[in-house]
Amino acid sequence: MRRKILVVGTGKSTSYLLDYLLQKAEEENIQLTICDLNTDILPDKIKLHPACTALKLDIFNDVARSKVIKESDIVISMLPAHFHIKVAVDCIQHGKHFVTASYISDEIMALDQQAKEKGLVFMNEIGLDPGIDHMSAMQVIDNIRNQGGKMILFESFTGGLVAPESDNNLWNYKFTWNPRNVVVAGQGGVAKFIQEGTYKYIPYHKLFRRTEFLDVEGYGKFEVYANRDSLKYREVYGLQNVLTLYRGTMRRVGFSKAWNMFVQLGMTDDSYTIENSEGMSYRQFVNLFLPYSPTNTVELKMRHYLKIDQDDIMWEKLMELHLFDSKRKIELKNATPAQILQRILEDSWTLAETDKDMIVMYHKFGYELNGKKEQIDSNMVVTGEDRTYTAMAKTVGLPVAMATLLILNKQITNPGVQLPIRREVYEPILKELKSFGIHFKEYKVPYLGYNPDSVAS
Amino acid sequence: MRRKILVVGTGKSTSYLLDYLLQKAEEENIQLTICDLNTDILPDKIKLHPACTALKLDIFNDVARSKVIKESDIVISMLPAHFHIKVAVDCIQHGKHFVTASYISDEIMALDQQAKEKGLVFMNEIGLDPGIDHMSAMQVIDNIRNQGGKMILFESFTGGLVAPESDNNLWNYKFTWNPRNVVVAGQGGVAKFIQEGTYKYIPYHKLFRRTEFLDVEGYGKFEVYANRDSLKYREVYGLQNVLTLYRGTMRRVGFSKAWNMFVQLGMTDDSYTIENSEGMSYRQFVNLFLPYSPTNTVELKMRHYLKIDQDDIMWEKLMELHLFDSKRKIELKNATPAQILQRILEDSWTLAETDKDMIVMYHKFGYELNGKKEQIDSNMVVTGEDRTYTAMAKTVGLPVAMATLLILNKQITNPGVQLPIRREVYEPILKELKSFGIHFKEYKVPYLGYNPDSVAS
Repeated sequence: MRRKILVVGTGKSTSYLLDYLLQKAEEENIQLTICDLNTDILPDKIKLHPACTALKLDIFNDVARSKVIKESDIVISMLPAHFHIKVAVDCIQHGKHFVTASYISDEIMALDQQAKEKGLVFMNEIGLDPGIDHMSAMQVIDNIRNQGGKMILFESFTGGLVAPESDNNLWNYKFTWNPRNVVVAGQGGVAKFIQEGTYKYIPYHKLFRRTEFLDVEGYGKFEVYANRDSLKYREVYGLQNVLTLYRGTMRRVGFSKAWNMFVQLGMTDDSYTIENSEGMSYRQFVNLFLPYSPTNTVELKMRHYLKIDQDDIMWEKLMELHLFDSKRKIELKNATPAQILQRILEDSWTLAETDKDMIVMYHKFGYELNGKKEQIDSNMVVTGEDRTYTAMAKTVGLPVAMATLLILNKQITNPGVQLPIRREVYEPILKELKSFGIHFKEYKVPYLGYNPDSVAS
Repeated sequence: MRRKILVVGTGKSTSYLLDYLLQKAEEENIQLTICDLNTDILPDKIKLHPACTALKLDIFNDVARSKVIKESDIVISMLPAHFHIKVAVDCIQHGKHFVTASYISDEIMALDQQAKEKGLVFMNEIGLDPGIDHMSAMQVIDNIRNQGGKMILFESFTGGLVAPESDNNLWNYKFTWNPRNVVVAGQGGVAKFIQEGTYKYIPYHKLFRRTEFLDVEGYGKFEVYANRDSLKYREVYGLQNVLTLYRGTMRRVGFSKAWNMFVQLGMTDDSYTIENSEGMSYRQFVNLFLPYSPTNTVELKMRHYLKIDQDDIMWEKLMELHLFDSKRKIELKNATPAQILQRILEDSWTLAETDKDMIVMYHKFGYELNGKKEQIDSNMVVTGEDRTYTAMAKTVGLPVAMATLLILNKQITNPGVQLPIRREVYEPILKELKSFGIHFKEYKVPYLGYNPDSVAS
């Protein structure tokens, strides 16, 4: 009997995940079942693979869902995060292991005791970010601690970007993941972190003006804006006493300053709808956020409001998006400003079939060892192949697939709801990821503490 | 038998209300019962007045509350807005009229049918704003319509300010009402309005940079920032077809630009708490919102972050509040930035015993009559006597008291949940308010539409 792996949900992130598992099907003696509301979009090489069964499934059909989970040995949920719980509860009931790339929600966490009692591994946050960030950081932190070092600084940055060879717009950016997450990034609460022992708070409307710069060898300069959630990593990584704890999102230099124009205008707001949005021109949309004038153009009002000089590249970035076009119409009914902005950006920022994306991750580890302050920087760059085989799908999908096999093969056995911060998890996965070109370069650098010279504003 | 008026809740706003009713006690044959958790704060002239009974009442004591309402003929609730419903439900049960100065909540609105069936007047929004604004606006609008005019523009602005003779700080502002409402003003949603047929939306972080100027004869120049709720007045005043509908809050010129510094820093945020707030110095509080630096002072970081020149009055406004003081400590545990800012401002902006406050209200009415566009501007200025007999207490309390007597005397009879937009309500009240020095000056002005020259930014 083949071992049965069930994959629920097939989105953008599953190309490498499915290929990996099917390539291992023979040697690992596994049979794959892939469930989705729509399985037609799966390529033939997957659908017609002898070790694969594609099954149409409505995740809200409790009977069908429960049945297919009962028949599996382990379940991977690639559904949108808020749907995981239905799958997870079935896994508890039928005694199946469970793997996702999503953050552990409170409702998933509540299953911890039951998972432990049944000896089930419920592995979460094992994609890219969260996922590879946890594993690569914990490997270095554990090594420092094993040498007797004491952590005093941890900074970590990740960006889903467009590769240099496909980077052909003024924003140096294209959507490589869920565009909505990009448009509303940073909303819903203040960004909190610690720098040299001092708490710092950045409100949303200043987030994109408090960036820092980073150099990545061979790839040039990047900028970073703060994530909302830096402080929660104190508990997760055991960094309660570090002086600096800061996580952020990486962009090409100049993106944040330009993005801030949308923030200042109010175009990223997702909290109210514009009743008459359907059929409105891009130009009319822009004018909603500018003062009324019987004589001045939308262009001049915009330049004045945002203090954009005649020869400022900020202006060219707006023009590139056709923001002042009165012929292009919004086709969304009762849409929020954020939804409308997303549509406008998708015109310009959607990956072409042959475009390559690029993932960049950068960690800084400061520590004290034998009375001296030391620092290790490490970074990873992964480039995609095309719009389907993206670096994003690779770095999210491969760790999920590898963890699934490790659990199935009883190399990961620690039961309960968890994320990949234990050595038995990160060591084999980071090692295997290397053979796929996903690896970190480490640099010993002088410890500067939080570096004031890198502050951009 | 004397007619019994019950007043539940005695706050800042009740000085004029109680005096008015007690002065009328003999001629109107009324007996007043005043209930509060703490009646000790009532002055002797009220407590010991023969027509007055002061009663300690816990509003959550259902038996006691119901009893005292049952024994009354009409009930005035001056409680915080979210407590009105308990009183209102008792009024329905025992068949008593009900008067408040608060906005009609959904739960109060839900009592409309029952109030109508029992012939009870449930009068709300009959203070200053809401209250005098409704009455004074509807009187002019009704007059315009009675002449055959068609409304095309309505703008309305109110400010609770400090009177010129007590105006002795750089902000030209003191707290004359609930300070918390001032600190969080404008939060919780985008400001929406219509100008010349175009919808306009201002996000919170731009609200205080989109001000307009107004002149009030004899009092000089004021500025206005937009309220969140302008559009709801379309329904209330029957202005569905006006081209411009805009409501705002008045301040002395320069206040908003300075207040915007707190908004930009994130100090008005009420959505998260600062764990280590107790014992923190004002200076440390400020530093939470500024970038980390091992060398630069909080002062220089602030000047750079907010682009404040060496000789800018913005800076002097901050200094006046002792914002950089490292000796002054915050005495609040786990407080939000907004709560801490409020405390810091209360050091400087609390009315002295003899300080006088000032209420300013300004309306603009644009209309078409006989094929011509016309405009009427009207304004009201009321100055207080001292910290107890404030213009705010006068303009809130007197309309409440007058409405109560009119209902008791069956001059206001229309039953149901309502606000004072009917002639039978506003006409006698506006007339009587005049005898207390509360009156509007009207000016015929050329119709300019929405005046572009008054846009400040």
